[in-house]
Amino acid sequence: MAALYVALIHGPVLNKRGDRITTATTGLSVHDIARATATFGGAGFFLVTPLTSQQALVERMTRHWQYGSGAGYNPNRKVALEFVQWADTLQTAVAQVQQAEGQMPQLVATSAKPVANVPAVEYAELGQQLAAEDGLPTLLLLGTGWGLPADTMVQMDAVLPPIFGASDYNHLSVRSAAAIILDRLRGK
Amino acid sequence: MAALYVALIHGPVLNKRGDRITTATTGLSVHDIARATATFGGAGFFLVTPLTSQQALVERMTRHWQYGSGAGYNPNRKVALEFVQWADTLQTAVAQVQQAEGQMPQLVATSAKPVANVPAVEYAELGQQLAAEDGLPTLLLLGTGWGLPADTMVQMDAVLPPIFGASDYNHLSVRSAAAIILDRLRGK
Repeated sequence: MAALYVALIHGPVLNKRGDRITTATTGLSVHDIARATATFGGAGFFLVTPLTSQQALVERMTRHWQYGSGAGYNPNRKVALEFVQWADTLQTAVAQVQQAEGQMPQLVATSAKPVANVPAVEYAELGQQLAAEDGLPTLLLLGTGWGLPADTMVQMDAVLPPIFGASDYNHLSVRSAAAIILDRLRGK
Repeated sequence: MAALYVALIHGPVLNKRGDRITTATTGLSVHDIARATATFGGAGFFLVTPLTSQQALVERMTRHWQYGSGAGYNPNRKVALEFVQWADTLQTAVAQVQQAEGQMPQLVATSAKPVANVPAVEYAELGQQLAAEDGLPTLLLLGTGWGLPADTMVQMDAVLPPIFGASDYNHLSVRSAAAIILDRLRGK
């Protein structure tokens, strides 16, 4: 089984008007995506933010649930929060995966809108790659705000199609999208 | 296509020790599950809580995004929040679905643990029922806290199996579970 990592990108991302911004870390996103990472056999979950105050917040949260009073209160959170670490940039997260896995990960983005200039990969196809013994380590990128900027998108090896249901509304939260994507790739 | 409703049960539910409690409403749960309901063609989303203060909170949130400054700022939230309403008990939610649909809904629970005394239904099977033109209206129950009490469970017509991924850890947030369940039932 290939190693699957998740990166939640807080910066740089786009805002509503298409400006480059850094979004704030949301405590529930850290928990929800860490718990989904643990459930679906992920190898790690990066919060990518250039803000030192936000990096410190992530450290405080993980310490509370790993070593503080949270660890005794809810051991399931302890397990999930062990997957969490911060990285100042996407490049740092990629380098950390490379160091842990001994090879460069493939970078796969997700997007609520179709992306023209990046090869598309279907969920079933990527799921099969990940299930293979010799599958490449994979870093799955989730954007916050209004999504990943074009200069991040062009670095991707592949992009997964937007998630659609029974309507043409597809404005899921990043927490919901992360859960569905991991289930489509690795659910039983 | 059968009408699919979601109910997030805040009370009565169980706490860690198995006592009956009422949990607090979480703003992000309202948003995340409303957006997933909209994405997957749901007909409505009930927050079930006996607490009038919490019912008022739900009303304030929906008003802000439907008619307040939120409606102009983010019209996608407006669409999603239109699906949201509170009910004081499960019985009230069931009665409201019955009134809207002209017949009693089937009640389907979800659970992180196997449930012995309720008929199991597979995701694919329920998905087919929901896709049928003459499919029964269905109310999907999501528990908060440590899950639904036994006297709620025995009222169910069916229960969906727990969600497992690539590990034996299955402690998803209710937001993640809701997203995955709706995708499994109605995703494209």
